[in-house]
Amino acid sequence: MYIIVVYDVNVSRVNKVKKFLRQHLIWVQNSVFEGEVTLAEYERIKKGIKELIDENEDSVIIYRLRARPKRKNLGIEKNPVEDII
Amino acid sequence: MYIIVVYDVNVSRVNKVKKFLRQHLIWVQNSVFEGEVTLAEYERIKKGIKELIDENEDSVIIYRLRARPKRKNLGIEKNPVEDII
Repeated sequence: MYIIVVYDVNVSRVNKVKKFLRQHLIWVQNSVFEGEVTLAEYERIKKGIKELIDENEDSVIIYRLRARPKRKNLGIEKNPVEDII
Repeated sequence: MYIIVVYDVNVSRVNKVKKFLRQHLIWVQNSVFEGEVTLAEYERIKKGIKELIDENEDSVIIYRLRARPKRKNLGIEKNPVEDII
């Protein structure tokens, strides 16, 4: 499956979340990661995020898609996914 | 179609972008909007964003999906979409 992860995490924890997500996904923009993952990887990512965030204060959304979606980039591309995969 | 808009826009312009997107989509999290739109609305949103951002500095990604994707929320839900639509 293909996932897009967007997060709104307190500054005291955000670097750990970023570092963790970078091990599994591609950074595309401030607070946005995405990538193709297996179901096992998806579960690992979910678990890892839960361990790093404060579930009473932070918010993370994982969108689950079947495949990499169409996208339109406006302005600069902070990290052009096309160049990586 | 269903779109997810994520933006990384300079603080001097971000409020205008937010205000504009709020007229067309649902705010789900810091720098993330989403919603069901027609092709005409999609084009209007794209045009509107282009007019508001600095294309040499800001970055906006519009993901185009066929339907509202599955999602997993971890932590708090800043704005539970389920309650709105």
